[in-house]
Amino acid sequence: MPSWALATGGTRFGRFPGAGEPHTLRHKMEDAALVHRLTAGAPRIALHIPWDDVEDIGEVLSDARRLGIGFDAVNSNTFQDQPEQPLSYKLGSFSNPSAAVRRQAIEHHLRVIEIGKQVGSRALSVWLADGSNYPGQMSLRGSFERVRECLQEVYAATPDDWRLFTEHKPYEPATYATVVQDWGSSLLLAQSLGDRAQCLVDLGHHLPNTNIELVVARLLGVGKLGGFHFNDSKYGDDDLTAGSIKPYMLFLIFHELVLAERDRLPGFDPAYMIDQSHNLKDPIESLLQTVDQLQQAFAKACLVDHEELASHQASGDVIMAERTLKRAYETDVRPLVAEARRRRGGALDPVLAFRASGYRAQKAIERPVSASTARPTHL
Amino acid sequence: MPSWALATGGTRFGRFPGAGEPHTLRHKMEDAALVHRLTAGAPRIALHIPWDDVEDIGEVLSDARRLGIGFDAVNSNTFQDQPEQPLSYKLGSFSNPSAAVRRQAIEHHLRVIEIGKQVGSRALSVWLADGSNYPGQMSLRGSFERVRECLQEVYAATPDDWRLFTEHKPYEPATYATVVQDWGSSLLLAQSLGDRAQCLVDLGHHLPNTNIELVVARLLGVGKLGGFHFNDSKYGDDDLTAGSIKPYMLFLIFHELVLAERDRLPGFDPAYMIDQSHNLKDPIESLLQTVDQLQQAFAKACLVDHEELASHQASGDVIMAERTLKRAYETDVRPLVAEARRRRGGALDPVLAFRASGYRAQKAIERPVSASTARPTHL
Amino acid sequence: MPSWALATGGTRFGRFPGAGEPHTLRHKMEDAALVHRLTAGAPRIALHIPWDDVEDIGEVLSDARRLGIGFDAVNSNTFQDQPEQPLSYKLGSFSNPSAAVRRQAIEHHLRVIEIGKQVGSRALSVWLADGSNYPGQMSLRGSFERVRECLQEVYAATPDDWRLFTEHKPYEPATYATVVQDWGSSLLLAQSLGDRAQCLVDLGHHLPNTNIELVVARLLGVGKLGGFHFNDSKYGDDDLTAGSIKPYMLFLIFHELVLAERDRLPGFDPAYMIDQSHNLKDPIESLLQTVDQLQQAFAKACLVDHEELASHQASGDVIMAERTLKRAYETDVRPLVAEARRRRGGALDPVLAFRASGYRAQKAIERPVSASTARPTHL
Amino acid sequence: MPSWALATGGTRFGRFPGAGEPHTLRHKMEDAALVHRLTAGAPRIALHIPWDDVEDIGEVLSDARRLGIGFDAVNSNTFQDQPEQPLSYKLGSFSNPSAAVRRQAIEHHLRVIEIGKQVGSRALSVWLADGSNYPGQMSLRGSFERVRECLQEVYAATPDDWRLFTEHKPYEPATYATVVQDWGSSLLLAQSLGDRAQCLVDLGHHLPNTNIELVVARLLGVGKLGGFHFNDSKYGDDDLTAGSIKPYMLFLIFHELVLAERDRLPGFDPAYMIDQSHNLKDPIESLLQTVDQLQQAFAKACLVDHEELASHQASGDVIMAERTLKRAYETDVRPLVAEARRRRGGALDPVLAFRASGYRAQKAIERPVSASTARPTHL
Repeated sequence: MPSWALATGGTRFGRFPGAGEPHTLRHKMEDAALVHRLTAGAPRIALHIPWDDVEDIGEVLSDARRLGIGFDAVNSNTFQDQPEQPLSYKLGSFSNPSAAVRRQAIEHHLRVIEIGKQVGSRALSVWLADGSNYPGQMSLRGSFERVRECLQEVYAATPDDWRLFTEHKPYEPATYATVVQDWGSSLLLAQSLGDRAQCLVDLGHHLPNTNIELVVARLLGVGKLGGFHFNDSKYGDDDLTAGSIKPYMLFLIFHELVLAERDRLPGFDPAYMIDQSHNLKDPIESLLQTVDQLQQAFAKACLVDHEELASHQASGDVIMAERTLKRAYETDVRPLVAEARRRRGGALDPVLAFRASGYRAQKAIERPVSASTARPTHL
Repeated sequence: MPSWALATGGTRFGRFPGAGEPHTLRHKMEDAALVHRLTAGAPRIALHIPWDDVEDIGEVLSDARRLGIGFDAVNSNTFQDQPEQPLSYKLGSFSNPSAAVRRQAIEHHLRVIEIGKQVGSRALSVWLADGSNYPGQMSLRGSFERVRECLQEVYAATPDDWRLFTEHKPYEPATYATVVQDWGSSLLLAQSLGDRAQCLVDLGHHLPNTNIELVVARLLGVGKLGGFHFNDSKYGDDDLTAGSIKPYMLFLIFHELVLAERDRLPGFDPAYMIDQSHNLKDPIESLLQTVDQLQQAFAKACLVDHEELASHQASGDVIMAERTLKRAYETDVRPLVAEARRRRGGALDPVLAFRASGYRAQKAIERPVSASTARPTHL
Repeated sequence: MPSWALATGGTRFGRFPGAGEPHTLRHKMEDAALVHRLTAGAPRIALHIPWDDVEDIGEVLSDARRLGIGFDAVNSNTFQDQPEQPLSYKLGSFSNPSAAVRRQAIEHHLRVIEIGKQVGSRALSVWLADGSNYPGQMSLRGSFERVRECLQEVYAATPDDWRLFTEHKPYEPATYATVVQDWGSSLLLAQSLGDRAQCLVDLGHHLPNTNIELVVARLLGVGKLGGFHFNDSKYGDDDLTAGSIKPYMLFLIFHELVLAERDRLPGFDPAYMIDQSHNLKDPIESLLQTVDQLQQAFAKACLVDHEELASHQASGDVIMAERTLKRAYETDVRPLVAEARRRRGGALDPVLAFRASGYRAQKAIERPVSASTARPTHL
Repeated sequence: MPSWALATGGTRFGRFPGAGEPHTLRHKMEDAALVHRLTAGAPRIALHIPWDDVEDIGEVLSDARRLGIGFDAVNSNTFQDQPEQPLSYKLGSFSNPSAAVRRQAIEHHLRVIEIGKQVGSRALSVWLADGSNYPGQMSLRGSFERVRECLQEVYAATPDDWRLFTEHKPYEPATYATVVQDWGSSLLLAQSLGDRAQCLVDLGHHLPNTNIELVVARLLGVGKLGGFHFNDSKYGDDDLTAGSIKPYMLFLIFHELVLAERDRLPGFDPAYMIDQSHNLKDPIESLLQTVDQLQQAFAKACLVDHEELASHQASGDVIMAERTLKRAYETDVRPLVAEARRRRGGALDPVLAFRASGYRAQKAIERPVSASTARPTHL
């Protein structure tokens, strides 16, 4: 779970916060721990620096131990200007024509790595907003080279047992060209960095009609699939609840993952992360629903009869091959998933259990809204 | 010009304001007047309520007279919650299941109409963010009916010489379904309201690959084209400078407009408005550039030989019909447009003239940045 | 079932026919009857003129009686030139600048109506390939007016108890602009024709990311939903098996239909047709699979608790409203659908029953392939 | 010029051939020579095997010498079944699960290479239609591996001074997943083959909204841009005349090419090919227009002031950087291009010169249409 997804998100047109939202990292960790407790399937939180205040690492670690959660990949932020920041990222961070801005962005990443080491992270996740809004604004080749060089310095600073994830996105906030626009560019970066660099697939970061399970398969085939930012979308990077729009596609992605595990592909160790923006739903409820949807997709993918599928593929029996997948997908796995959750200590129906708990109402009292806590968050 | 386009825009990921931006309506009117002075082609400003503070109408009108600008359509805002607002638009305004929220939204529109009357507007422009993020969230038919009913009340309150513009958009901020998703829905609303209701076409409010000049032609054909929100885009509602990505498409749209004027179509009186978000460019410079691009597109459209075109169309000479358009488009009209501008009192090169004027530096001194002036704006 | 879907389809790159395909209308009717027998859910075949040879109507009717199938809407074809045809549709049919070509197209439609009367059809389905490949090729407004005028003459020739369906499509075969590009244009035509004119929604005839259930809801809201051409697609008009790519979307469309029936909407009487191209699958097997998928989607839509849904919508409970739909969708209705089929005389598993029957092998003997039977078909 | 573009193309819905079309390779070479003579810019024809009948190589070479044209890359075809072919490509060629089918496809390529050697080609262009129409039909990873292995054998058979071009396409004819779906997959193939393997960019082979100049820049950056299939499109692989829909994009692509030449990038030697389908326009006229449009785009790209552009990019002056490009683009280069053409022996206005020549009328007499010459062609 990303720490930012525990607060209400928004759009450029506005944000509609709810009562009882988290204002501090401790709040977020509390909420994350609850999501894990109810789902028995989300044991780690991903920090975002500088959104997450980690001034007292000892306290953070002590909270985590008490709450029973760990720390996933650390996330950097060079797409916003912070109040104390000397130079602006308005025209890019790693791709900026100014060496001084690039240096500032590198230093930020080094600091993020340090924080990650302290909390026990094992990966750095780098999403860059770098790009251009108009033709001519930046050199398309030059900007990529600058990003590559900066990443090499950052990569060199990561511990030997860490991975570095590069993340592609075709647009937004840049509206003409992004620097890491697709998995091809992400792959080139990961290739030039080294074995510990892999590509992160955010389901919402693709052009219309992209076959995402095919992208996953390609990255798996060359050992460069680092992990996921799960969500769903109908139009762009909508950051909706996973499985809420195209549940069959989510199943097909998990099918590729189950196949990869079955085939013991080298380098297969995907990091499963959620990256959603909860604009209308209660963030905790949405995360509970999300974990359930991911558990269902995984359970269905496990039901696929791989021998039968391979046999139909080999004989060119299109309809029976398709039916082999559909048979698994159309199975109602809700009882199975609920019971598996219960046996691991979670709730049969996490959302209902959450509502029954009165947690949010309690937090609304404990965490009163103030002007200073109403800052916009990453979506 | 929309008042909001005179300030730096942003995205959900951040905003990078510049020095010398306008903080008040008077500032915006000063800037708008300058754009008009340099381009000789942007004589009116469009107010957005409540972003534009119009407490003292006398002062606003006196400023306008002094600056030599008028007021275009007034724009309502029911997509954000204002501090003093009793009920939230989180789940919609005109489409909200709650009658009280709908009443609040109607009252807001009545107030906007009153302001419009006082400043001499002749149109109300209604863009609704209403929609849903998830299947099931709202009744697809019911929400449309509620919007229609509210609009009927608002329409009835507009003066007899006003027009009401309905504006469609397929997504954003809603991510699953908007209520007025395309020109078809916009047309149904305009039809049900009456003759003074027409449809507004924002070039960025379309699905990928939409043939926008065809949408324009359809609305022209039934007398329902109200006007435009000009901008350009590569991916979504990018709100880039008009003509910056697909200049040929802009020309083809103007070709339809020139044809409509030539054919004296009933109800043809389009309102030409700009709706852009200046995230990286100086807003004034971008508007100067925009007006120039629109003037070029219009000048090129005027060069089309309509008799020749009609003749090639009648005889089915595809290549010569296309060449007739291309010949006009490929003509370099920059000298013509510059000279026409000069003769009307504008600048040959508005952007260079603006830079030479030192205006922005002067304003940076006159309009110091403070925390309270850094509020996000509509894009 | 459309008669053309019983033969192997193809693409502009090629066609790979199989053994035992139908060569004559009688063959197609035999195959269609089998699909109906096994699914207990596809009682009618849709003729396409002139692809379907109906020279001896008496024989056709006698075959139909014997086989136990009826005739759905008749389909015209003005997108191909037939050997004996005096004028070419290369530059359009109803939109053609030549009055003589338009007359020829009208006469074709009158003949199609006559055939429809004789076989007991109750509707005429008009899909026009009219459009242009290049800007300037045709007048965007003029071509629409010509289509409207031609349709009026055709509409006037339809019996009083018939409906006329207009069908939109944004592109293909036209690559720049089609005349009936979207439901908005289709609606304008249906409005100008009269009450018996309604709009047909082919699921594959939409721009990327279109919310099709929303289009369905809009047409339902004004009593203009005529029916469907079911299929599925990932990119364009792929004409894949219904439910094979976006099964959740198919469910959401059926949800709108069930709602419309429940609300007793005026004019609600949709024609359910399939329009698929079976390029790789055995056409009969694909149709059996398709009917099953449609039956499943309908069954799931019937499971939605409408009172609960309406209650959550009214109270703005986004997550519970969504869950109400998802609960129905995630139910495994295969046993229910299979048993319902069995009780109506169909097969529990139509595809397996078909394979066990040896039908195709038998037909491969009865219907030998010859050069003359290998003509390309509409997809 | 591709040999197939000299005949009228079609769609899956039909083909509307014109009089005087080429029926034989000699015809096509005559037409190609005329295009070159009038444009002074299209000196080579690309063969497509087996569409082009090259049984008597001596005659073909003698024709070429006489006509003054050469031979570009040779193109294979494993997406259609030929009458004499033992095994079907219905379920793929290089990706086919059957080793025998793969062997047949490899043998075809070896034959194509032999023909290429004889006519003096220096490259093999491989576009595969391989893919699947339904989830489950093929193994996403396995199919890619099989393609890679086949290509390695083919690559090994190419002469040392040849290049092998891999070409990506996201869909069509496959509708669910293609094997080489984007430049990322194409790059992986080219990387695994060797230095002489490069990627071919067909402008129509991209998902909606793809920034193609950015793809070009990425491939240039790693020395893997092999060349182009020029055309234009609004929706899919529309194969329209280059520059007819998005002329500014075409200019931006040429800008990247001029930049690459200026920067003396290693491996920069793009093959410029046209791949269009002339469904409505006279194929020769369309090719004449196409070459002119490419010449214009190139001429405009040469007008860009690179020092000024780099300076504005370095200082972050977005608007002036954009203007530097726009200034070149908005220049009317038609007189320049016409005069350059004239000096090289071509026509000032190739289309008008062609029409004045009476060539097509003459060919309509020389090349009467017969049933056997009306075969569909690749688009």
